[in-house]
Amino acid sequence: MAKILMGPKTLIYPMPALLIGANVDGKPNFMALAWGGIANSEPPMISVAIRPSRHTHKGISQNLTFSVNISSVDLIRETDYCGISSGARVNKAEVCKFNVFYGKLGSAPLIEQCPINLECKVVHTLNLGSHSLFVGRIEETHVSESCLTDGQPDIQKIKPLIYTTEPYRQYQALGEVLGKAFHIGREVEAST
Amino acid sequence: MAKILMGPKTLIYPMPALLIGANVDGKPNFMALAWGGIANSEPPMISVAIRPSRHTHKGISQNLTFSVNISSVDLIRETDYCGISSGARVNKAEVCKFNVFYGKLGSAPLIEQCPINLECKVVHTLNLGSHSLFVGRIEETHVSESCLTDGQPDIQKIKPLIYTTEPYRQYQALGEVLGKAFHIGREVEAST
Repeated sequence: MAKILMGPKTLIYPMPALLIGANVDGKPNFMALAWGGIANSEPPMISVAIRPSRHTHKGISQNLTFSVNISSVDLIRETDYCGISSGARVNKAEVCKFNVFYGKLGSAPLIEQCPINLECKVVHTLNLGSHSLFVGRIEETHVSESCLTDGQPDIQKIKPLIYTTEPYRQYQALGEVLGKAFHIGREVEAST
Repeated sequence: MAKILMGPKTLIYPMPALLIGANVDGKPNFMALAWGGIANSEPPMISVAIRPSRHTHKGISQNLTFSVNISSVDLIRETDYCGISSGARVNKAEVCKFNVFYGKLGSAPLIEQCPINLECKVVHTLNLGSHSLFVGRIEETHVSESCLTDGQPDIQKIKPLIYTTEPYRQYQALGEVLGKAFHIGREVEAST
């Protein structure tokens, strides 16, 4: 199987389509973000990569708090709008008709329409070049009651939005279930 | 829309199903990893969260290099096997019949069967509690020729594997295309 070299590229699939919230000069602002991931389990942490030129970066630097709002396929237009517009020019929450609320941190704005919201407190900031990598400790998780089944998050109701990066730059839905993790790999062991 | 509080949780959807490679005591080893994301664009960087008890952690600490291998739906069993077995006990590359090769770094083992391989050099390590967050500069990208169309990565051929975290802990495929990023959001602007 021949390999082609493409030079250093930020090529991973899939990426999440998250909405990152921060208060900027006291007002809620949101940006779309695909460059983030869980960073630690005890205590729970998440990392997000944001350019210093972004309005959201200013807000996170002001409060050292931010929110991670999981987007759903129903919010595809609003999510993309938050990626192509700037909070320095428009009030995105108003344009997108987001119902904004605050949780225990008080300064990390949350979007009611998103199925899951994480409130985060910045514990590390790495300035890596083009982006700052903010590592946030997850302080609280809010899940929409309508996205629960028997008290647990239900992926059929959450319907998370997926971002497929270059050369596609498109949004996709989750596809079919292929197997149980921490289980299907036993078939490899069995055959050896 | 009522919200239920669930306490601090590492709940984001989707997560990637990556295979992280490192040479441990000179031998290639791989682990499954869902906790990672792009961290910077110029220069390209990626972050991965790994427990110090993992064999792969030892290898990354020895060489300060690692690989990120994008898994595909065809490798679901091998990927999961690399998540439930330990390189301290078994030779995972052998059991999974991975064709291992090395690129420009020389010490970051790559899996030929994976559609995309990133070679990374550690530039930062954050010890966050349960996990170390390794930030790696992406030094080279290898793409299988069979996964290209007109010289560009083709998502239909890559068929990336997706990990859906708790309470599911299952693998899924990518679903339908819903819209173009940096474009569909204009419909929100148009309606205001």
